[in-house]
Amino acid sequence: MSASVILPDLATQVVVPVAAAVGIAFAVLQWFLVSQVKVTGDGGSAGKGGASESLIEEEEGLNDHNVVLKCAEIQTAISEGATSFLYTEYKYAGGFMTVFAVLIFVFLGSIEGFSTKSQPCHYSVGKTCKPALANAAFSTIAFVLGAVTSLVSGFLGMKIATYANARTTLEARKGVGKAFIVAFRSGAVMGFLLAASGLFVLYIIINVFGIYYGDDWEGLFEAITGYGLGGSSMALFGRVGGGIYTKAADVGADLVGKVERNIPEDDPRNPAVIADNVGDNVGDIAGMGSDLFGSYAESSCAALVVASISSFGINHEFTPMMYPLLISSVGIIACLITTLFATDFFEVKAVDQIEPALKKQLIISTAVMTVGIALVSWLGLPYTFTIFNFGAQKTVHSWQLFLCVAVGLWAGLVIGFITEYYTSNAYSPVQDVADSCRTGAATNVIFGLALGYKSVIIPIFAIAFSIFLSFSLAAMYGVAVAALGMLSTIATGLAIDAYGPISDNAGGIAEMAGMSHRIRERTDALDAAGNTTAAIGKGFAIGSAALVSLALFGAFVSRAGITTVDVLTPNVFIGLLVGAMLPYWFSAMTMKSVGSAALKMVEEVRRQFNTIPGLMEGTAKPDYATCVKISTDASIKEMIPPGALVMLTPLIVGTFFGVETLSGVLAGALVSGVQIAISASNTGGAWDNAKKYIEAGVSDHAKSLGPKGSDCHKAAVIGDTIGDPLKDTSGPSLNILIKLMAVESLVFAPFFATYGGILFKYI
Amino acid sequence: MSASVILPDLATQVVVPVAAAVGIAFAVLQWFLVSQVKVTGDGGSAGKGGASESLIEEEEGLNDHNVVLKCAEIQTAISEGATSFLYTEYKYAGGFMTVFAVLIFVFLGSIEGFSTKSQPCHYSVGKTCKPALANAAFSTIAFVLGAVTSLVSGFLGMKIATYANARTTLEARKGVGKAFIVAFRSGAVMGFLLAASGLFVLYIIINVFGIYYGDDWEGLFEAITGYGLGGSSMALFGRVGGGIYTKAADVGADLVGKVERNIPEDDPRNPAVIADNVGDNVGDIAGMGSDLFGSYAESSCAALVVASISSFGINHEFTPMMYPLLISSVGIIACLITTLFATDFFEVKAVDQIEPALKKQLIISTAVMTVGIALVSWLGLPYTFTIFNFGAQKTVHSWQLFLCVAVGLWAGLVIGFITEYYTSNAYSPVQDVADSCRTGAATNVIFGLALGYKSVIIPIFAIAFSIFLSFSLAAMYGVAVAALGMLSTIATGLAIDAYGPISDNAGGIAEMAGMSHRIRERTDALDAAGNTTAAIGKGFAIGSAALVSLALFGAFVSRAGITTVDVLTPNVFIGLLVGAMLPYWFSAMTMKSVGSAALKMVEEVRRQFNTIPGLMEGTAKPDYATCVKISTDASIKEMIPPGALVMLTPLIVGTFFGVETLSGVLAGALVSGVQIAISASNTGGAWDNAKKYIEAGVSDHAKSLGPKGSDCHKAAVIGDTIGDPLKDTSGPSLNILIKLMAVESLVFAPFFATYGGILFKYI
Repeated sequence: MSASVILPDLATQVVVPVAAAVGIAFAVLQWFLVSQVKVTGDGGSAGKGGASESLIEEEEGLNDHNVVLKCAEIQTAISEGATSFLYTEYKYAGGFMTVFAVLIFVFLGSIEGFSTKSQPCHYSVGKTCKPALANAAFSTIAFVLGAVTSLVSGFLGMKIATYANARTTLEARKGVGKAFIVAFRSGAVMGFLLAASGLFVLYIIINVFGIYYGDDWEGLFEAITGYGLGGSSMALFGRVGGGIYTKAADVGADLVGKVERNIPEDDPRNPAVIADNVGDNVGDIAGMGSDLFGSYAESSCAALVVASISSFGINHEFTPMMYPLLISSVGIIACLITTLFATDFFEVKAVDQIEPALKKQLIISTAVMTVGIALVSWLGLPYTFTIFNFGAQKTVHSWQLFLCVAVGLWAGLVIGFITEYYTSNAYSPVQDVADSCRTGAATNVIFGLALGYKSVIIPIFAIAFSIFLSFSLAAMYGVAVAALGMLSTIATGLAIDAYGPISDNAGGIAEMAGMSHRIRERTDALDAAGNTTAAIGKGFAIGSAALVSLALFGAFVSRAGITTVDVLTPNVFIGLLVGAMLPYWFSAMTMKSVGSAALKMVEEVRRQFNTIPGLMEGTAKPDYATCVKISTDASIKEMIPPGALVMLTPLIVGTFFGVETLSGVLAGALVSGVQIAISASNTGGAWDNAKKYIEAGVSDHAKSLGPKGSDCHKAAVIGDTIGDPLKDTSGPSLNILIKLMAVESLVFAPFFATYGGILFKYI
Repeated sequence: MSASVILPDLATQVVVPVAAAVGIAFAVLQWFLVSQVKVTGDGGSAGKGGASESLIEEEEGLNDHNVVLKCAEIQTAISEGATSFLYTEYKYAGGFMTVFAVLIFVFLGSIEGFSTKSQPCHYSVGKTCKPALANAAFSTIAFVLGAVTSLVSGFLGMKIATYANARTTLEARKGVGKAFIVAFRSGAVMGFLLAASGLFVLYIIINVFGIYYGDDWEGLFEAITGYGLGGSSMALFGRVGGGIYTKAADVGADLVGKVERNIPEDDPRNPAVIADNVGDNVGDIAGMGSDLFGSYAESSCAALVVASISSFGINHEFTPMMYPLLISSVGIIACLITTLFATDFFEVKAVDQIEPALKKQLIISTAVMTVGIALVSWLGLPYTFTIFNFGAQKTVHSWQLFLCVAVGLWAGLVIGFITEYYTSNAYSPVQDVADSCRTGAATNVIFGLALGYKSVIIPIFAIAFSIFLSFSLAAMYGVAVAALGMLSTIATGLAIDAYGPISDNAGGIAEMAGMSHRIRERTDALDAAGNTTAAIGKGFAIGSAALVSLALFGAFVSRAGITTVDVLTPNVFIGLLVGAMLPYWFSAMTMKSVGSAALKMVEEVRRQFNTIPGLMEGTAKPDYATCVKISTDASIKEMIPPGALVMLTPLIVGTFFGVETLSGVLAGALVSGVQIAISASNTGGAWDNAKKYIEAGVSDHAKSLGPKGSDCHKAAVIGDTIGDPLKDTSGPSLNILIKLMAVESLVFAPFFATYGGILFKYI
């Protein structure tokens, strides 16, 4: 079939599952290595660690079995809280999924009146394709599989994170390098598991669905898009629910603990402290995992659906068709090599080597992956082929597709470094924000907001350049593979990203277990680096979301049979205007949810401090469970309205106003949402690190603003608290808003094309 | 010529200038009435006031010549500060205007190589039109006239405001009703002067330019667009420069005075107090005046340029061609009637009647104007005509055009009321924000931001509905007249709007002159109502800016010869994405400018409190002049970069990337900017009124949060301070950003169409 391609189809059939298997095996290996750190407090088993015993002796603080037991106890509390919340969240999400699965089946099945007869194809003229009913059924199955994979990815990520946090704390007794490796390996477990399982499930369903679809690739890859929708729908609940959970707890804990009672962060006397630590795992770990899995699944689906109506699909060239999966396969191997640089080839010996080590990961993975992309493009693509371009076919060369993937990959790196510049307290922007605290919280907020707005400029130019290049070279297929390029190093990106909350938790456990100042300094250093990498991770997530959404938008438009989306028509323009408003509506909901939930948390924490005798003195234990319950209930209740807004908008607009208006809404939400998402996440990150800058007091300038408890520091804490919902709830949730509306539109495109726009039809 | 139109051309030639003259006469009459209140402290002249003498006797506070003298002295200081700032601002703006005027002439003249020969017309096939060089010359003249009219409008508005503020204070001694009338009349002076002179100058240049152009209406109205560009360019400097001035002074004064020194607002001991009061006049009065004048001129120009290539222009039907000017003429009369309801037909007797009286103005003017529009549409339009619609002609009926204007008018009212709902402390949104101050500044900011985001929803739907209706009925001409509809009651809108800062100043003067508590209560009540109306005014300004920009965008696209702006092309899409980013870039600049200038002001105020002995005790006078100088220097310096961003972007994008990308940039900036502008202005208004709600302590709920100086109140003050640059600098300046880029593109459209996009042409 694909005579012009070097890589035989059979080799492709081998390479993809093998790469996935290698990824999973590597994740399991990392897990095993982490599990070597014992938290049972059983003296005998520690013997396995060999040399470690003597190292622990150096520790000047508490160093008996009690510390280990205490850590184990806290870890169990966090793990149980997180597990219990995720079960509740998944229960509601599961109910929603069931309803939505039925909706998909009914809507898509209705297109040909639930007929079981084959129909003439849309694009392959003269051939017959499978009936809409089959596409409906397979889309529904793909949707469920996507949702389940996303759910499992998030859940396993949370499990390893709560498994690793106390282990990181305990390793910190032996030195910062040891602790770094545990935290990083645990992040890698999540990264590789997610990347590999996402690829593997996609590979399986393509092959299994293919048995039924046979030659009808158009229908096959249309059905596959359900996978992306499933992944992203779960991510919505993960991001929004988890985001509200984590920030309600965080803001509530800080407002009473730090501001009113003047006790340190993560102090075990604070009743909301367990909820806060649980939040890191359900929000930053499970939520982020689901989010990036969604992006990955969606960009693959967008590329596949466009490819299926391009020459690859029409000529049934299997290897080029699998180009997106080959990119991801090579990505897993590239990230595997990269990981070894952090864990084996080099060693972190001092605190100031942590951030460079993490940054090196980004650079190495990008460099290695560039070679990988070149290889795949050379081996897996014919030199010349055609790509579907809104009604026409466009001729493309393999090296042009290489450029598309590479520009996405490198744009990701640029976004990462710009994000670092604006959110790390090593550079002047954050230092200026910290300095503005001299005149109080108001100027801190004004400067912080201005910083966030400013930080949008270069990432937008980077995204715009990637879009321009990939769009010009290979139309929407180019944009889709650019997104895949940005996501090809997802395993490393997630490892770095998950490393942050694990270190954050490790610090919390050290504080709660009453470990020595030296240990906490080490975990704090891990955490500070994690703050910046978290912001970088969010930058990647947003940047890739923008590319993915555009690719999905292009696929939707192709599938809905539109050839132009003309701003100079009222339908499209009002769509654009209203679409640009949706991120504001959505953010209003999520911000207010965090605010309201935090107020409830504050009341409960105050009540406990006021009514439990001996709590402030540390002689009585707070009631952690009630705070966990408040966060859980609030986030479950509050995630429904924003979730409904995102899920229903495409359905309502498509059904009543038609595909043109829906196109406008998608484009508007995309160009507006990406700006708010970047600025919100960077503003929040900058405030957080401005506060940390004052607290750490490393430079003379920083010392002049501190110490903890000074007026400047109080102003910085207010900024940090405002930034919490911006950077961890509303900002990152906007990724999902723009992606999910696009992928949902794509899945329902055949329905909208057939029945959509009833308002304009009948009025 | 226009046989099918009831109103003869001659009548049109009479009605328009007469309406303008009536407007100017009415403004002069109001000025005369205000001038009857004497501030000379000369006992003899007060005798003219007749009954007033006995009324003043009722006053229980200071009531001797000294008060009047003191008021006069403060008024002079404010007036001199404002005049001196505006001179400086206009000097720089004038320099800029000169350069830009040359640019316009050179760019537009170059199109036909500065040839003086007539050329075949673009739209009227088979006819010859005037050379591009003539269009360049007349565009430049129109530009200068627009700039000068805008400048004069702003300046005269400032003059009457600084003339009225002390008079309002003095009248407050006689009762709230008297004070209200003085403040309102002064606002009306500005409103009518601006509306009437804008109309008059436009009428004159159409007729004078017409002598040269003769039958070439295409060229005539193309040249007229320079008028809009001139008006809006000046508005840019007015809004940005004035906005930075006023908020640097306000934030600086508050941070030291209220927060650190715990002295009341407008306390004469605060060195920044004069600068703060000057700021109200240069920012909120002169800036707002220039802004709305710009909108008015631009929407008229957009309507005229589209009409000139529609059947009105092609058939040379003068009366229908003048439809936009007829609407404005009737608007002046409608507003005149409306004003009488506030000043003569009814009387404000108590504090709680102020806000309803102002709200009634909005409703009455809208209702009266609806009848006026119906009349003009019936008399001034043929029943059937055609409108240019991106390459085609669309048939429209006169009643459809009536609907277009009316929907704009009523959408303005809806936006006004929604803005009031979200920013007045009579309703739950602001009360919720006030309540969130219980847990400190952080939750106040989170709730305030969420409120701002939420307040965007309904205005956007109202704008979208207006656009959809008017666009569907009469293409871009419909959108332009919808904008004119929203602006047709501009005289009343501006009167209400200018009333706010005048009352604010009156309160400041009462405080500084040491007048009694009762007087200050009255001026505070006037001011509180003014806060809400200021927010409503901003809502109008933004709503009309959105419609105007779209109309200008449509005119630009028509003029540039584009028939589709397809989102599915890389050029347009990256334009959209980058355009949506520009408001963030611009806001980052303006917010940071306010922050930096405020920091300088804080240092100076602190220095004076620390180094001038007896300042806090009131025995020594502060050095007001230095504070005025700081605000002046900062705003002049800081207005350059955002100004350059706005003015250069269309030129750079158009020249290098071409008209398609520029279309994308304009659409992106429009749909993104309008959201930030609305949310920023409402968030700021809500914080301001939440603070006032706590201070006033009218309800039990409000009392539980207060009193002044409580922790809640302090948190509210922080919110208010953050809101200052949002609502008075960055938010309202975004109006100008979206309008100005659009009108500039329109003026330079012939150049871009001929030479634009050199980057894509040669690469």
